[in-house]
Order: sequence, then structure tokens, then C-alpha cells
Amino acid sequence: MTESELPVIEMHPYRWGDPDRPMPLPELARAALAQLGATPPAAPVDPAEMPLPEIALPADARAAIEAAVGAEHVSTSHEDRVRHTRGCSTPDLLRLRAGDAADAPDAVVFPGSHDEVLALLAACSAHRAAVVPHGGGTSVVGGLAPAREGFAGVVAVDLRRLDQLVAVDPESRTATLQAGVRGPRAERLLADHGLTLGHFPQSYEGAAIGGYAATRSSGQSSAGYGRFDEMVVGLTLATPRGTLDLGSAPKSAAGPDLRQLVLGSEGVFGVITAVTVRVRPRPEKRLFEGWRFASFEAGAAALRRLAQDGPLPTVVRLSDEAETAVNLADPSGESESRDREGGEDDGSAIAGGCLAICGYEGAATEVTARRAAAAAVLAGARGELLGPEPGEAWRAGRFRAPYLRDPLLDAGALVEALETATFWSNLGRLRHAVTEALTGALAAQGTPAVVLCHISHVYETGASLYFTVVCAQAPDPVAQWRAAKAAANQAIGDAGATITHHHAVGIDHREGYAREVGPLAIEALRAVKRTLDPEGICNPGVLVG
Amino acid sequence: MTESELPVIEMHPYRWGDPDRPMPLPELARAALAQLGATPPAAPVDPAEMPLPEIALPADARAAIEAAVGAEHVSTSHEDRVRHTRGCSTPDLLRLRAGDAADAPDAVVFPGSHDEVLALLAACSAHRAAVVPHGGGTSVVGGLAPAREGFAGVVAVDLRRLDQLVAVDPESRTATLQAGVRGPRAERLLADHGLTLGHFPQSYEGAAIGGYAATRSSGQSSAGYGRFDEMVVGLTLATPRGTLDLGSAPKSAAGPDLRQLVLGSEGVFGVITAVTVRVRPRPEKRLFEGWRFASFEAGAAALRRLAQDGPLPTVVRLSDEAETAVNLADPSGESESRDREGGEDDGSAIAGGCLAICGYEGAATEVTARRAAAAAVLAGARGELLGPEPGEAWRAGRFRAPYLRDPLLDAGALVEALETATFWSNLGRLRHAVTEALTGALAAQGTPAVVLCHISHVYETGASLYFTVVCAQAPDPVAQWRAAKAAANQAIGDAGATITHHHAVGIDHREGYAREVGPLAIEALRAVKRTLDPEGICNPGVLVG
Repeated sequence: MTESELPVIEMHPYRWGDPDRPMPLPELARAALAQLGATPPAAPVDPAEMPLPEIALPADARAAIEAAVGAEHVSTSHEDRVRHTRGCSTPDLLRLRAGDAADAPDAVVFPGSHDEVLALLAACSAHRAAVVPHGGGTSVVGGLAPAREGFAGVVAVDLRRLDQLVAVDPESRTATLQAGVRGPRAERLLADHGLTLGHFPQSYEGAAIGGYAATRSSGQSSAGYGRFDEMVVGLTLATPRGTLDLGSAPKSAAGPDLRQLVLGSEGVFGVITAVTVRVRPRPEKRLFEGWRFASFEAGAAALRRLAQDGPLPTVVRLSDEAETAVNLADPSGESESRDREGGEDDGSAIAGGCLAICGYEGAATEVTARRAAAAAVLAGARGELLGPEPGEAWRAGRFRAPYLRDPLLDAGALVEALETATFWSNLGRLRHAVTEALTGALAAQGTPAVVLCHISHVYETGASLYFTVVCAQAPDPVAQWRAAKAAANQAIGDAGATITHHHAVGIDHREGYAREVGPLAIEALRAVKRTLDPEGICNPGVLVG
Repeated sequence: MTESELPVIEMHPYRWGDPDRPMPLPELARAALAQLGATPPAAPVDPAEMPLPEIALPADARAAIEAAVGAEHVSTSHEDRVRHTRGCSTPDLLRLRAGDAADAPDAVVFPGSHDEVLALLAACSAHRAAVVPHGGGTSVVGGLAPAREGFAGVVAVDLRRLDQLVAVDPESRTATLQAGVRGPRAERLLADHGLTLGHFPQSYEGAAIGGYAATRSSGQSSAGYGRFDEMVVGLTLATPRGTLDLGSAPKSAAGPDLRQLVLGSEGVFGVITAVTVRVRPRPEKRLFEGWRFASFEAGAAALRRLAQDGPLPTVVRLSDEAETAVNLADPSGESESRDREGGEDDGSAIAGGCLAICGYEGAATEVTARRAAAAAVLAGARGELLGPEPGEAWRAGRFRAPYLRDPLLDAGALVEALETATFWSNLGRLRHAVTEALTGALAAQGTPAVVLCHISHVYETGASLYFTVVCAQAPDPVAQWRAAKAAANQAIGDAGATITHHHAVGIDHREGYAREVGPLAIEALRAVKRTLDPEGICNPGVLVG
């Protein structure tokens, strides 16, 4: 199944995907959890029964909002409010599971055009209602839970009605998509023109174009198609003060690149309503395969060679020894693969080493040539070709990891991920520091953890690191994770790395972000915010506090 | 001669390069100028005799500046003041030739460290002295002539003492260079480590690293090495409020990319003191060759294929019919080539068509393979291979065009260049609109012009256009050009293109820039400026007015 054939998923308040089709917990995981001491917690609270805060939004504010978008596009229903409560981080899910919907918005608004968003922002400014843009709702950094204090209420702006492909320029290979278009729909709309965006983050099935832009998303095919911020050639931002319409050329020397100021702005300057992106022809051919390296260091060195001297695969990733062994990065895909191969044999083929996945997409002859050249580099770097099986298994299961989190939480596991990036010469040190911080902080709480790591995005000058953490839930799992996360953030900052490579800042990374860029940069961003959003209603508390 | 072997040139106040080695005017140009009606104007005023404005800077301000950098690093000499008067646009040269040095700074300061720049900015803030950062002095957009009104004086901050390679990270392939390092020196410093930056704008021999960053420079090898803004992974900016130190990772999702806010800021937020750039191994092999296309449209279509489907040469450019015929883009190189080839023959080989130059640099086998693949694309797009001669001629003469301007001005020609960029589908329209605007505006003044155009930077979604204009000087050539430039700017704005692809905004493009990004964006930038530079002393009047 190609990406454009996947359905758009609507997020359950605290489950990923369709709760009527739950993913079973693999036996291997069940055994591992028992060893970690995980025991099933109380069953989660039914969303329909969840207590919600009183609606704070005054009647005149609601009237103004209704005037902006039409009364039929303003909801205060229990279901809509619960569905728009926070995002999809593990703490977000844990809190909702426990029945804590304190961050529920007072209203959910569904504007139908850029002009309606402008009018909505003006109305909310006038009535000091906080506004949180809502695309797919897949934030994992607290980006959907704005501050409430000092505001007349919180309004979630659900962009699902902004779901059109506005323009295609096949000669320039650009397409303009409204911000509410979800990943699979974007691919289907573009496929009608023989085009693809090529942006496949793990949140792909749920996340929306505007969210990709607002959070500087990076997809699994970033080596081939680039990060989302690299794809963007134009942006339309609705602010309380009016519209910013940016992007007169692919590149320009006309002042700072203001597109790069809106990318990553996480709703604090306004609401992105449309994005013009570079698109590419749909690939004729796809080829995914696995490689084994004796160690993470050897694999990282091989990936560095590809990133620096080429050729780059479209997808390139490397699991460390622990992740390779556990296969948690892709439990369903990998376990299917194992079943097909007869279990132990396939597992032992990469036991003690590190699995790398390389995928190639494009025109048929180009894929063949690029794959051959990359394979020569990998073999030269002492990689052992495992053939297409691990690659195809990864590809088949690559959007499934978030689904697995639900049965893990059900079983009493605490499972969460975090990520960072640094320059190549700092990568090994960073991995060890973060791993130690996480294992140390969780062991100190009496819940020894398994920490897995992979590289999933490479650049000429460095790479990302993605950590997955599993341990038994403590009695207060939110506080438990907060301590571990704080230790990891500290280690990342101490190592001089970035607090996030592709998850954004939200609320969870605010301190680390301030440390990373320094107080003067935060002041400058706040000055921009005051200019565009004088009342401070746009996603208050996020990014710049 | 490779780039690292070229000497750093110090700009004469109104001549490019060493005035003791003037470039003679080619005979062909002399004949063309006669046809355009150019007659030699009065001889330029001797810089040593040029009247300068009284030094406005009060004694206490000078004392504070001397305290910041040392008295021996503050100059008010006639020569230093003239040398730091404006930049290298044709109007800049024309005004100095006519003896107008009204924009001369009151003092030229030579700080020796980042901390000294910080202290200097604090001193200038305290005394309300305007500050203009000065690297190589090669601005062609008025970026070196800040507003004077309301300030106690204007201080040029010459960064030549910040000329060190601070750090090299061969594993990450990054290098940190101080802002005052000039192009050839950067290449020599990196060559000692087997590395190259690969950034070769036409100002290469004079311009400095900080200026590349402040103006979003783009070099002739941008197809292979990227634009300067794409090379930057870290930046240090000294502001009146303190230091911004940016770049914790190659890429990040931690908020807006603030590096991209400093890149292109043209000194209005402060002074860039160091830049960390991506570097590459020095190329083993270089191969340059020429191609002929029947028309500009056919050539542009071929370049678009390379940019969109690859492979990209390291250098790729296409002259239009007029530029190909006149060969003004590279008069010295091309005329040498003609001489070697026997004159008319080589000229007629591309008569009636358009010359493209493709250059390939890198590892030997990679260059061979990439060249073969690109050649197949170009031949498939009905390009006719002209062999290495035109390519090598271009390479030999590529930094010489600015030298030719001096004898042209001496001979009574008005010669100037401007550039823009747009998406592929708009390129033909833009070229015609700008050409008509220029020829129309100059014909209306009784000075019919020759307008030449080339593409020199290509992207997947679009390309740049560079226009060279030659006509006879009118009695007031500055006003004459101003009218032509205004018409071109209007046409660029009307076409929805960017006001500048690689020359920056300065003062000359301020209106076009404001139109391009809109008033709200300008307000946001001014808010950033107020935060970092509360007294507004940093290059006032530039970029955001």
C-alpha cells in the first residue's frame, strides 16, 4: 500500500487511530513488560463520561465568533471539546485516560476560509479569547494546550474545512494546499496530477499541512524529499493584525527569509491557512532493504559517508543495538517479517549488531543507479546486506508504532519518545548522555527502563537521534515521565544539541528552547508576536511562553 | 588558477581592483559604445582631493569608541573615510567619480574581537552614533550608506581584523570563520585542511564572510555548493543588547529558524562576527563546457530539467541571445577565447542562439558520471555541445566583469546590473517585462540601451534572472539610472517576483522589498530591530527604513 492509499485517521482523545480496531500487544512485548514489572493500571475513563471544565467563554465572545464563521461552525459539544483536548504525547494520553480534561477548549470553531480565520482572530482578539490552531491534533509537545489564565476562554480552531488543493503549477513543480489538508488527502490530491509531496512523518495519517509547517515537521523520507521546511516555498498566515503572504521566489536575498520565521512558529503568531510546497513526480519505483552493521558507531559512520559524499537513499535510518534487538521501532512489521521467515533465524541474523534501513524512490533507472552506488558505499563501510525483507517490513509497519503505544499503556507500560539532533562529531557523546540521563532518572524512581535509539534524518553536517523509552508505570506516571524528560532535556542542552529535531517546542520544550537560543532571541520572538498578535491570544504559553 | 590562488583585492573608492592595473576596453565594446552615442565624460575626481563632510562625531563619542577598541584602531583619515564611502553600485561609483562623498563615515573603526564589537555597539548606542558593518565594501544596493539624520555621526566598522579560521570540524564538515575573512583567504585557510567553501560570487575577490551572510549572497557554483544561506549552520551576532549565538544542529524544529532571520539582516540587527559553515573536500576534478541552445526558452527548459530531475552541474548558467552575442557577461574571457580560436568562427558557432555554461567539480569519478548524465539530459533537450572552450573561457574570466565597468564608465557608458528570481512558469514573462521596462525607461531618456540577461542560479521550482544594461550616460547618469531601475523594480513587483535574488535590499530595494513582503512583515522586522537595537543605531535606513 502506498502512502496515498492510506486513510486519514481521526484521533480518538487518547488512542491513536480507530479504537474499534485495537492493536494487540505482541507476545514479545508482553514478556518484556512483565520483566520490567509493569502491571495493568485502572481502565481509562470513558471520554463520553469525562468531566469537562465549565465553558468560560462569555456570550458576547461566542456571538462574535459565530458572526465570524457562522453559528453552525461553532461547537461546544462534549465530544468536540474532548477531542480537541491536548495532543498525543504520552502524558497527554495518560492525563485523559485518568479523566483529566482540564485543558479542554471552551469551544471548537471550524472556519471555512482564510478570511473567516482573519475574522475569527479579530473577534478573539477583541474578546481576549485564546486561540489554538488544530490540524490533526498530533502534537507530542503540548502545543495544543495554551495558557488559559487571563483569557476569556480557549477556542480550538479546527482547520478541517480548509481541505483543498488550491493550485498546482506543474512547470514549477509547486502546489498550494490549504492548511487543514491531512497527509493522505494531500497525497491523493497530488496523485491526481501525477505528483507527490513525499512528506511522511509518523503522524502522517492524522497530521495536517498547516501543522507540518507550524512545527517544522520532518518525514521518514527526508533524505530524499527534504524536511517540510525545505519543501515550503510560500506561506499564508492569518494574524490578528492581518495577513502575511510570503514567498515570491524559490530563494531570495530580499531580507531575512520570513517563511523561516513562520515555519516553526507553532501558532503563536497566528494561523497558517495555506502552504505552497515544492512537489515531485510520483515515484515509478521503490526499493527498500536492510543492512547490518557491527555497531552503532560503524553504522553511523556509513550513514555519514552517504550524507556527505552521496548518494543519499530516499529513506535512511539506523537502529542502535538495543532497538535492533527489541525491534520496538517497528514491532508489527518486524514481527510479521519474523513470522514469515521462521522466527529465530531472522532475528539472530542481526543479533548483536545494528539494523539500517535504506529506501530508494524515484524514476526506475535512477533508483537502480542510486541504489547500486549507495550499496557500494555501505558495503565499503563494512555493512552487510540483509536484502529487501527488513526494508519492506519496515515500510509496511512504519506508521504503526504509535498504535502500539495504546496496548502498552493498557498493560501498565510507560512508553514515550523524544528526539534531538547534533553535528556528527558530537553524535556518539549525545547518544550516551541522553541514554544515561533517561535510564538514570527512571532507575532512580524504581522503574528501570529500556532505552532504544535510532538515527532517522541525516545531513552533511550531522544527524538526528530518536529515543524510545519503555518502563513500568509508576503510581504517578505523568510525574515519572516528567522527571525522566527533564533529565534528558538537561543532557541535550549540556551537549549543545537542539532540544528537538522534528517534534517542535510546544510547552514541553519551552525551557530547553529558551536555553538553546538564549534570552535575547526569545525577546525578539516575543516582539514579533506583539506586533502580529498585540492581545497575545495566539496559542499563549506555547513556544515563547 | 583556482579560486584559492586569487589575491584578496582591496576596493579603490570607485574602481574595482587594483587601479594601477586597469583593464583596457575591448575594441568590440568601444565600437558598440560609439553606436550607442557614448562620449567620455569629465575625468573622475581624485579620491585624495575629494571634499569630505566635516566630522560630526562628538569628542565624547569618539573617546567611548576608542575605549571600546583602542585608539589605534579608530581612524578619521581622509583615505579611510573615502574608502568606506558607499559600495560598488554604478550610482555609488558615479557619485564618487563626480566628487560626491557626502556619505563618508565620520570614523572607521577596526575592532579585533567579538567582545570589542559588543563594546563598540554599546558605546555607539550610548552616544547615538550610527554603525555600518564593512566587510569587503562590495554592496551594490546602497547597504553601506546608512541614514545620518538624527545621529551623532556614522561609524564604519571595518571587520578586517576578524580574519581567522576559528575552528574546523572535519568529521562534521563544518568550519567557523570570523566575519572579516575575505573570499580568497577563506579558501586558502580551508585549503590547508583539504576543504573548500565553494562560494564564489562575482564579488569573491573582495567580499567577506560576514557580508555573504548579511546579504544572502549566492555564488556562481550555487547549483553544486548551494547558496551561502544554505551553507550556514551557525551564526554569532553582536547586537547593542548582547550576543545572539545560533545553530545547535544542522536542522531543528525548535521554533523559527533564527539563523534565517539573521541571514539577510544587512547589519540592521547588529554585526555578524562569526559564521559556521558547511564545508566540502576540495574538488579533485573540474570540467567546464559550453552548450548552445536555439533559444533562451529552449535553454531554460533544459536547465529546468536538470534542476528538477537532475543531475545538477556545479555551475549552470544560460545567457540569452543578446548576452550570447555581445558576450558582455565575460568579455575578457570570451575575447581571449575568440582570439585563440581565430575570432569570427567561434563567435558564429553560437550566433543566433544561446550559450549555456555547465561546470562540474568534485571527486574524479563522480564528476565524470555526473557530467555524462547531465550531458545526456542537455543533448536530449536539443542542446549542442560546444566543448570545453567556452566553459574554460567563462571560468577564466568569471570574476572580471566588474573590472570592465571602470573603462566603460570612463568611456561614457552607463553600465549596471540587476537581478531577480521567480518560479519557472513565470520566468519568460518576467524576463520580457523587465527587459521592456529597462529599454523603455532608457529610450524615453534618449539613451537607447542594450539589455542582456542570463540565468545563473536554478532551483527545482524556479530560477534567477540577471540583467546587464548598457547605454550612453545622460548628463545626470545617476538620475538616468534611477529612472530605469525604478521601472525595472516596478516590473519585478508587478510580475510577483522577488526584488533581489542575491544582491540584497540595502537602500535601493527598500520600496520593492516593502511591497514584496507587505507592511506587516516590515513591522515585525522593525520590532525585532527595536528589541536588539533599541537606539536604532545599526545601519539605519537600510532594509526596513
